[in-house]
Amino acid sequence: MKNLILASTSTLHGSDYLDYLLPELQSLFKNCETVLFIPYARPSGISHEEYTQKTALTFAKININIKGIHEFENPVQAIQNAEGIFTGGGNTFLLVSQLYYHKIMITLKETLEKGIPYLGTSAGSNIAGLSMQTTNDMPIVYPPSFQTLGLIPFNLNVHFIDTDLSSTHMGETRETRINEFLQFNNFPVLGLKEGSWLEIKNNKIILKGNLTAKLFRKNYDAVEITANSELSFIQ
Amino acid sequence: MKNLILASTSTLHGSDYLDYLLPELQSLFKNCETVLFIPYARPSGISHEEYTQKTALTFAKININIKGIHEFENPVQAIQNAEGIFTGGGNTFLLVSQLYYHKIMITLKETLEKGIPYLGTSAGSNIAGLSMQTTNDMPIVYPPSFQTLGLIPFNLNVHFIDTDLSSTHMGETRETRINEFLQFNNFPVLGLKEGSWLEIKNNKIILKGNLTAKLFRKNYDAVEITANSELSFIQ
Repeated sequence: MKNLILASTSTLHGSDYLDYLLPELQSLFKNCETVLFIPYARPSGISHEEYTQKTALTFAKININIKGIHEFENPVQAIQNAEGIFTGGGNTFLLVSQLYYHKIMITLKETLEKGIPYLGTSAGSNIAGLSMQTTNDMPIVYPPSFQTLGLIPFNLNVHFIDTDLSSTHMGETRETRINEFLQFNNFPVLGLKEGSWLEIKNNKIILKGNLTAKLFRKNYDAVEITANSELSFIQ
Repeated sequence: MKNLILASTSTLHGSDYLDYLLPELQSLFKNCETVLFIPYARPSGISHEEYTQKTALTFAKININIKGIHEFENPVQAIQNAEGIFTGGGNTFLLVSQLYYHKIMITLKETLEKGIPYLGTSAGSNIAGLSMQTTNDMPIVYPPSFQTLGLIPFNLNVHFIDTDLSSTHMGETRETRINEFLQFNNFPVLGLKEGSWLEIKNNKIILKGNLTAKLFRKNYDAVEITANSELSFIQ
């Protein structure tokens, strides 16, 4: 049993934090009075307190309380007792390091497999994949492992962006990077554009939002997947 | 004693591999008949053989032979005996993993500190910094450590690109990523644009090329550094 929303980004250009997702979150967390927030990814290095406050202000719009995991003495119990969980974006290396440091990676996986509703945005979606190895983030800290929750049988590349054919920049494109990943690893990668999210109910995975996603697999050409497709064929 | 060229990129848009650097390389490697090539970063996953062949074709223009480190039974000895060394770009995680796997990180550092001429491009320049943590690359493999050669007392961000203020993409800008790094680490980062390189002779570090570079330090505003500046003040 799973009940997850994995979003490419928390925020769309020109709109407020989580704004475009609020109707979805109202439905996802409909039985929750309080959602446990995991602020470990600390975007731009903001503190756990600041990040949690910002998130609480937004969730107040849909009458849900937010409590940060850093407020609990025992983070493992905090997860086991949560009615719903949200992991925010930021730096994936930092997030994964903290999940291992606090020894909650396995508890989080087990809890989410029981059907506790979960929202991930950006880094918080990355960790639902098999590994964090298709993150776009900078390795600002050294995590003990790149392995993540494996709630879906593939990896995500969030904030996915098509190659800009007019660019003169010689740094690798997103596609080049993902294809390099596939040279050394044999599991699929889904490039999820800003504004797209995956809705996962039990083992049914649906691409939501209005945009296509791009699926990369070893030894195959990448394919565009249209919005509202069922993705359970990916493995 | 050091004699290094650390370039942001091997290739400028619209020109051939290493073309803009050839006059510099002629001077750097003037006493070398053969340069040892380290192809471990494997851009786009190409093989060591292909990458070495491509590099050999270019170095033939300046009458220098190239021999790949993978052709030697003992890579430690290959480095100790090299007249000059070039580490090409590609994926920094892969490069660093291979340097540790073949146990040549320390030997490479010691050899370059003796004044053996060295060219690094992109990932090959990253490894000259204190750590690889300001790479732009994807973590496609898990290296045993992020620590690198420390031939310069700061980190590099290669292929550095200024923030595009017109962009509607919500993924982190390069500056945001570097500033996140500085929240958790206390050494400077130099953003080196494509077309720029550092020339390091003994402990004198000069910014070469026609472009500015951007210096990021913890608790300071970033500063633009003009071409041909002496950078030995950075520490």
